[in-house]
Amino acid sequence: MENRTRIIGIDPGTRYTGIGIIDRIDNRLKYVFSETIVTANLNAIEDRLVVIFNRLGQIIDQYLPQTAAIERIFHSVNPRSSLLLGHARGVAMLSVKLKQVVLSEYAPNEVKSAVVGVGRASKDQVGAMVKILLNLDRGKFLKEDEADALAAAICHANTTVYATYGQQSHEV
Amino acid sequence: MENRTRIIGIDPGTRYTGIGIIDRIDNRLKYVFSETIVTANLNAIEDRLVVIFNRLGQIIDQYLPQTAAIERIFHSVNPRSSLLLGHARGVAMLSVKLKQVVLSEYAPNEVKSAVVGVGRASKDQVGAMVKILLNLDRGKFLKEDEADALAAAICHANTTVYATYGQQSHEV
Repeated sequence: MENRTRIIGIDPGTRYTGIGIIDRIDNRLKYVFSETIVTANLNAIEDRLVVIFNRLGQIIDQYLPQTAAIERIFHSVNPRSSLLLGHARGVAMLSVKLKQVVLSEYAPNEVKSAVVGVGRASKDQVGAMVKILLNLDRGKFLKEDEADALAAAICHANTTVYATYGQQSHEV
Repeated sequence: MENRTRIIGIDPGTRYTGIGIIDRIDNRLKYVFSETIVTANLNAIEDRLVVIFNRLGQIIDQYLPQTAAIERIFHSVNPRSSLLLGHARGVAMLSVKLKQVVLSEYAPNEVKSAVVGVGRASKDQVGAMVKILLNLDRGKFLKEDEADALAAAICHANTTVYATYGQQSHEV
């Protein structure tokens, strides 16, 4: 019998939140769905958080992933941005946990290594490799945040041994 | 007829989230409820966020505040702490908005000025003044996070003209 795991990758942001869902069927990876939740048009951060929470919940209800992967974040060059990003990331994590989906966190260099083979990679390289790894048409346009979300999901698929993986959640 | 507004103040944190509810009845302020949501015992940040979200939602359902006040935060001396604080604060804001409670944000010095009269005040001064302003017994023990939450609620009560206030939400 085939071993199938559905993984949702999430790249949270206050303006754009990337979502990418893949299936791992035995050793193969299959693209299922991706979307960018756009909140850049809303002024108030709390209104953005409501949209992220509600839409992510809908997507989880529809696609029923068993596990979620999200990038760990670090205090960035812009403290105000990372503070705001924390708001969006907290809401995304909450949404996942409330739906009983197991959450795993990966460092940015783990995600890049998983798709490109090296810890430092450009956005374009990540996007191109995601398409190759998921057998997507080279001409398919993949938004940057969706590519990053799919990369997190691929990282999870490649990191865990499919039959035995457990929760790998850590504090940021 | 008396003019009554119920205000919930929230002082979010990843370990302790202070909640304080007051009523403004015409010009008088009345203590209604306070609590510290303790999450320090949980290891995973996402589990803490679930507890904050669920308990805050319960409190709002029980006390039905019309409006919520939360301190604006700034990138602090410790970027990692403020990043994590952003997670808790985002979840608190989400909880409030999902319950249709109007959210207002105040800068820390606005909150301190509202209760102590000056923008710089010690934690002890804030706690003591909160008790005086709410006619609480001087001997009553008020936890620090609850005092801060009540201070935010008092700030809102004193800042807004009760008959005409509207949403004063801003981005952090």
